[in-house]
Amino acid sequence: MTNAFLYDLLSSIAERGRSVLKLRRWPKDSDSRAGSLIDMCEALLTGRGEASGVALASEILGRYRALDPADKTAVLRALADDFGPDRDRVNDAVAKWASNGDKTTASELHYASEPRRQELFRRLNRSPGGTATLVALREEMLEFMREDPDLAVIDRDFIHLFGSWFNRGFLVLRRIDWSSPAAVLEKIIRYEAVHQIRDWDDLRRRIDPPDRHCYAFFHPALADEPLIFVEVAFTEAAPEAIAPLLSAKRPQIAKEKARVATFYSISNCQRGLSGVHFGNFLLKQVVEEIRRDLPRIETFVTLSPAPGLRAWAETCDDSSVEALTSAARELAADEEWAAEPERAARVRKAVEPLAAYYLLKARRPDGRVVDPVARFHLGNGARLERVNWMGDGSPRALAESWGIMVNYLYDLNEIERHHEAFANQGLVVASSSVKKMLPSARSRAVAADP
Amino acid sequence: MTNAFLYDLLSSIAERGRSVLKLRRWPKDSDSRAGSLIDMCEALLTGRGEASGVALASEILGRYRALDPADKTAVLRALADDFGPDRDRVNDAVAKWASNGDKTTASELHYASEPRRQELFRRLNRSPGGTATLVALREEMLEFMREDPDLAVIDRDFIHLFGSWFNRGFLVLRRIDWSSPAAVLEKIIRYEAVHQIRDWDDLRRRIDPPDRHCYAFFHPALADEPLIFVEVAFTEAAPEAIAPLLSAKRPQIAKEKARVATFYSISNCQRGLSGVHFGNFLLKQVVEEIRRDLPRIETFVTLSPAPGLRAWAETCDDSSVEALTSAARELAADEEWAAEPERAARVRKAVEPLAAYYLLKARRPDGRVVDPVARFHLGNGARLERVNWMGDGSPRALAESWGIMVNYLYDLNEIERHHEAFANQGLVVASSSVKKMLPSARSRAVAADP
Amino acid sequence: MTNAFLYDLLSSIAERGRSVLKLRRWPKDSDSRAGSLIDMCEALLTGRGEASGVALASEILGRYRALDPADKTAVLRALADDFGPDRDRVNDAVAKWASNGDKTTASELHYASEPRRQELFRRLNRSPGGTATLVALREEMLEFMREDPDLAVIDRDFIHLFGSWFNRGFLVLRRIDWSSPAAVLEKIIRYEAVHQIRDWDDLRRRIDPPDRHCYAFFHPALADEPLIFVEVAFTEAAPEAIAPLLSAKRPQIAKEKARVATFYSISNCQRGLSGVHFGNFLLKQVVEEIRRDLPRIETFVTLSPAPGLRAWAETCDDSSVEALTSAARELAADEEWAAEPERAARVRKAVEPLAAYYLLKARRPDGRVVDPVARFHLGNGARLERVNWMGDGSPRALAESWGIMVNYLYDLNEIERHHEAFANQGLVVASSSVKKMLPSARSRAVAADP
Amino acid sequence: MTNAFLYDLLSSIAERGRSVLKLRRWPKDSDSRAGSLIDMCEALLTGRGEASGVALASEILGRYRALDPADKTAVLRALADDFGPDRDRVNDAVAKWASNGDKTTASELHYASEPRRQELFRRLNRSPGGTATLVALREEMLEFMREDPDLAVIDRDFIHLFGSWFNRGFLVLRRIDWSSPAAVLEKIIRYEAVHQIRDWDDLRRRIDPPDRHCYAFFHPALADEPLIFVEVAFTEAAPEAIAPLLSAKRPQIAKEKARVATFYSISNCQRGLSGVHFGNFLLKQVVEEIRRDLPRIETFVTLSPAPGLRAWAETCDDSSVEALTSAARELAADEEWAAEPERAARVRKAVEPLAAYYLLKARRPDGRVVDPVARFHLGNGARLERVNWMGDGSPRALAESWGIMVNYLYDLNEIERHHEAFANQGLVVASSSVKKMLPSARSRAVAADP
Repeated sequence: MTNAFLYDLLSSIAERGRSVLKLRRWPKDSDSRAGSLIDMCEALLTGRGEASGVALASEILGRYRALDPADKTAVLRALADDFGPDRDRVNDAVAKWASNGDKTTASELHYASEPRRQELFRRLNRSPGGTATLVALREEMLEFMREDPDLAVIDRDFIHLFGSWFNRGFLVLRRIDWSSPAAVLEKIIRYEAVHQIRDWDDLRRRIDPPDRHCYAFFHPALADEPLIFVEVAFTEAAPEAIAPLLSAKRPQIAKEKARVATFYSISNCQRGLSGVHFGNFLLKQVVEEIRRDLPRIETFVTLSPAPGLRAWAETCDDSSVEALTSAARELAADEEWAAEPERAARVRKAVEPLAAYYLLKARRPDGRVVDPVARFHLGNGARLERVNWMGDGSPRALAESWGIMVNYLYDLNEIERHHEAFANQGLVVASSSVKKMLPSARSRAVAADP
Repeated sequence: MTNAFLYDLLSSIAERGRSVLKLRRWPKDSDSRAGSLIDMCEALLTGRGEASGVALASEILGRYRALDPADKTAVLRALADDFGPDRDRVNDAVAKWASNGDKTTASELHYASEPRRQELFRRLNRSPGGTATLVALREEMLEFMREDPDLAVIDRDFIHLFGSWFNRGFLVLRRIDWSSPAAVLEKIIRYEAVHQIRDWDDLRRRIDPPDRHCYAFFHPALADEPLIFVEVAFTEAAPEAIAPLLSAKRPQIAKEKARVATFYSISNCQRGLSGVHFGNFLLKQVVEEIRRDLPRIETFVTLSPAPGLRAWAETCDDSSVEALTSAARELAADEEWAAEPERAARVRKAVEPLAAYYLLKARRPDGRVVDPVARFHLGNGARLERVNWMGDGSPRALAESWGIMVNYLYDLNEIERHHEAFANQGLVVASSSVKKMLPSARSRAVAADP
Repeated sequence: MTNAFLYDLLSSIAERGRSVLKLRRWPKDSDSRAGSLIDMCEALLTGRGEASGVALASEILGRYRALDPADKTAVLRALADDFGPDRDRVNDAVAKWASNGDKTTASELHYASEPRRQELFRRLNRSPGGTATLVALREEMLEFMREDPDLAVIDRDFIHLFGSWFNRGFLVLRRIDWSSPAAVLEKIIRYEAVHQIRDWDDLRRRIDPPDRHCYAFFHPALADEPLIFVEVAFTEAAPEAIAPLLSAKRPQIAKEKARVATFYSISNCQRGLSGVHFGNFLLKQVVEEIRRDLPRIETFVTLSPAPGLRAWAETCDDSSVEALTSAARELAADEEWAAEPERAARVRKAVEPLAAYYLLKARRPDGRVVDPVARFHLGNGARLERVNWMGDGSPRALAESWGIMVNYLYDLNEIERHHEAFANQGLVVASSSVKKMLPSARSRAVAADP
Repeated sequence: MTNAFLYDLLSSIAERGRSVLKLRRWPKDSDSRAGSLIDMCEALLTGRGEASGVALASEILGRYRALDPADKTAVLRALADDFGPDRDRVNDAVAKWASNGDKTTASELHYASEPRRQELFRRLNRSPGGTATLVALREEMLEFMREDPDLAVIDRDFIHLFGSWFNRGFLVLRRIDWSSPAAVLEKIIRYEAVHQIRDWDDLRRRIDPPDRHCYAFFHPALADEPLIFVEVAFTEAAPEAIAPLLSAKRPQIAKEKARVATFYSISNCQRGLSGVHFGNFLLKQVVEEIRRDLPRIETFVTLSPAPGLRAWAETCDDSSVEALTSAARELAADEEWAAEPERAARVRKAVEPLAAYYLLKARRPDGRVVDPVARFHLGNGARLERVNWMGDGSPRALAESWGIMVNYLYDLNEIERHHEAFANQGLVVASSSVKKMLPSARSRAVAADP
């Protein structure tokens, strides 16, 4: 903090008895603005300015928001470079740890090395609306980070803090329906990432009929801002395709007749919270909710995309599927194939075994399952239940997966066992119908058949 | 985690398809119980057991609660000793920091040295009611810590986590009145630490009349559990004594006539949150609330005890108050003095200058103001406004401070300046009336006068 | 309305442009006050004063409340005498009805004869808190009516209006528990009419344990004011006595083990609503609520007093119970009998058959069942299930019924049939155990035996 | 009630012990259905069926809804013809009144002549959702009434009951904004009757910006159903035209700068409640609300249509405006006039004096002001403040009033005086600017000028 600034600050207060905040001059030139803001951060952090800390925090966040991008990155760089831990204190702690590595010096090492920006963020969070502002700040920072990887040290602190603040114990599950505030509903429209919601009528079809539910996690500090939500359809049998589920003209069924709950769309809402995981908790709690309210529902499945299938097949050099990938590529080389029943039937013969192989056998170099959606559900302990040919005929789905959709089954009695098998041994638990779909001599022959 | 345990766990699940939790045997002998619980903590932490993580967290907390004290301390010791950071990872990070002390290795040093129990506590917090249980667990642990100072490393982690979770940005200010739930009100009765609330009628007199308000901070995860609350009386002038304020027969005044808001009782509710500070924020936000609702209120003062006065005087060897302390001690040697007007008047002559000296000049060896209540309000930027002779005639107050009570003044326009002067220069800002009370040659002479 | 008043009113408004209300003088002498208030009622009713009707209504109710009893009765007499229907309009309607008694002249007759005070009450009800004030006004008026039966015409209008306003369709059933506002709970303490609630601890025992529920009807216009409430105990078997149910030391049972819900106390709260019946609806809706929440509860019974039993026996001249009443009267002539086991056993032999006769056979001159509690439950379609000797040993119960308590059974599948039998044929549906208790030659002989 | 029906009812209950409701047969042929429903109404009314009255009421309303129109009118005719008062009791009461016309016989006359359908409606109202169903039933009945004026006796009872139930004291004012439930908001879109709301974006522009508010009355028994609502714009000066207020591109102003609140749209929502008036209360309470929240708002005006102006001018034979009406009619004979500035200017010269005359002087044969909107606001005590040429250029407004809009001013200090003058002497209180607009020799000459 510059002496001039401090002098300005203290003397003006002393002389005129007005609040510190009102007197802090806001420089006109851009360079000084970033510097001035950093000075304010120091004041907030060092306890000067503590008496009016909440007001100072608000002021800092408000001013930051009004900066232009260059000034923002200047501020962020300063946070990365100058708001790390106190180096002397770290070195002291390191020395003590070296000489006596007990639990107390370990603890001191941890606290001594805490970056000062963590405490800064905690103090900024005290201001009204601070949490939402910090989440938005990080969302923007993730953009800047592409250009400036040094900001990663800040991001690590954000992930740590947000992980602590958005602990599942603080989240509230709420049902979203037609009596929810419009301010929430418009966000459902905006954030739906899987199957677009076109307008309010379309939204209503998703959340209002008795055979449709929608649930979201909220955090008390982010009112009206869903963090993640899932859309559920109640049906008599597990659905094989998305279009009939979303059709405006679909038949509704009475709740009493429903036996299956299908999670057909799960969307994260806050990019600023990426790296903090809720989905796992959401699905399990929703299963509990539905079991309590609708005890006749016995089966919980997803209807999920397989977004990486076709990209994997394009580049795959696994010999066991070579014939199939070649066939699929050739047969579906142009976009008309899906409209030509005969060709589509041949594509199917190649793609179904490919999809089974992709989900069950294919692995990334790091040994993990390739498909991100599969990783999520299998990691949650779900079972790979069914591969659905032409589950989604939209251009995007055709481009990503030849239209394949997948059902994953959530059986609360089994998820622990499935999760263990998957996490420890990389084993994908699957139904026999999917296993039977795996490439065989026959399927390869069929694929090779012109 | 023992192999036997894991085997038991996994095989039983696999064989019988039942939930992991139901099958974990709960040993009968006490020793094994602590061990078994620690095994469960490892399972929760290492990701085995993740699929049913919330249920496992609940189970751990429930079982811990049921342990007897010896088993609890065994578990806590294990948390202190065995749930620190991964030593290898720490040593790696230390080495990197030594060779290249940049911001990235600093960051890595911090995260590498995080005690594993922090993540354990975050995962335990995911269970329903987890936050309340952890706060209660720490409250009890503080007792164990008296015997076993090694638990301090755990406590440091608790303070860190609770400080983050109970960030002021997550607290909600609520007014407490006669339409509040009984479940909240009974806690106000229980937690009032300054001026006891005897029963529900007494409570009603504190919160229901229009010239009485009560405000508390709540955290969304601790429903119906106030964290801290303040009781406020609206009056025409700043009150000098507590008894008339609390009298069942006191005259009520119309809100429009009130010009002063007096904070006459501030109570922390959760011992398990000691070390996390809310009082500072509470008073300032309450001032804002009242200013908005009752714009005619111009003055905000406390009516506070001086709990350390007499104990300080008993042991004080400061020569500038020697005559006064001797006089006060002798005059009030027995308990009848307060009932004898003439003697009481002489006590007053000695005690008033003493009190002024105690609040304005006396310092602890570490240079801080002696009185804890004075430290709190002066640190908040309040001004020492008035010393009230016989502000509280209760036996406890007579024993602690010869009945002295103190008004501290909260002037939002000045608190920043006062706070700076106090924090940086140790300067106690006081009214001229208090300064005039300081010991003088005359007061010393009077005191010496038999 | 007097000319002077109107002149005053209009001219002052015209001249000074201030609100009508502020200018209406409030006479000092008592006589004129009642007159002035009646003038205001006329103004409210005739539409003069309509523009500020809500304010005028508030003013009238506020001023009425401030009157002394003599003035209030003067106002009420004026309402009875001068706020009936417009006589000319009634005579016109009567003439038309006489000449052409069709549905239109019938309708006109009804509306022409509506007392003007009904519209006055509807307009008074528009003011904030008007409903509560009118209910309180009627409660007080019922006292005045003892002296002045002419007020009955007003009361009939109140019953009519309140019956319409407090229609069951507008009532809200709410559970009362420990998270209810204190403002509601204190009314439960105050209004409990059957088994006194001594203090807040006693209240808590009634509503907080998991095996105790309490439900009340509320009306949206009377916030925090229960209209009627019922206290429910969940038990394994239908209870025979009240003391064990209310004991501070009783064992609690887990909700899952409960098979019986006992309504052991039903209290009307608002005397000003006497004549408007809710109890019937309350019990049935509570049965529905409990069946939904606790499907294992199979049996719904009351534990009720028999408040008229002993008074009936004192004056009864029915020869079929002559021996029994004599015996009971003699044996229990002094108050010590209940403390003397042998004598008590003899009292029981006389009283049990008497109680069965009283509930099953005894009739008032108008043919109705004598006991008011029995009339209520039997009229609801309940079945007389069991007569419990010494169900309530309190002095009041001994004095009213030698301590007898009664279980009435609510079986929703049967209440229609029972109600029909009771309403049409005066038939009391009872269990065989009660029927067997009826006086027989043997019981008479035993009674006669000294 | 037919014997067969009763027999069926009672015997089946008795024999089979099932609920009365399940056993009532629902005839297949249409004629019997109406008859059967009427029998059920009798059962509900006469107390048979009381034990399960709420269920019976639900059943009746549900079955009525399912009838076809012919059967509904049959039921309604029966209600009109057969559910009037008990004729014998009426005749008795008439006789007593004739012999002794005191307050008691007057009261008896009123209650004796109450049509039985009133009690029937009160009992139907006990069923869940009963109020909404009865309001909808009446809405439909108003259609049937056009063909069958005999139903008017029923309608009179509906107006009476609804007037009592929807008493202003039971209504709740709520602000409607972007956090209101979508279920409420869609009704605002649907019910807006003055300036159409096209879609959700348009709605948002009306209720979400800080310089726009919307308020509605609700009744507790009709959740999510606004009864009437008003849209308010905050501006610096009273607006002269509607288009700039509703434009998507209009500049927003900060709330602190607003000095005028304009009520630019008031819509009744429930046709089934026509004849029950809320608008008067709504506007006054909204004025109070706004004055409390935004004390800088000093002026409350409407921006209202003059829907009857042109129709009146077409048929008016008042000689004092003959020249003007002829001129206006000729000049605006085709629809192009508004697009031709010169012609429009001449139309204005004729229409402005006409509008002033229409609002200030013109009267219906019954002596009342012609314009219904003027009647509403002047009857509320508003002042005719300004006549705005081309306030609304929409085709409908041009057709109704040559585009004229009107500001009425609500001055709470004056509304009483204005209301009295209007109600008693038919005096329209107007600003001098409107009075100056009245036809003069000069304006007539200008109009006559070709």
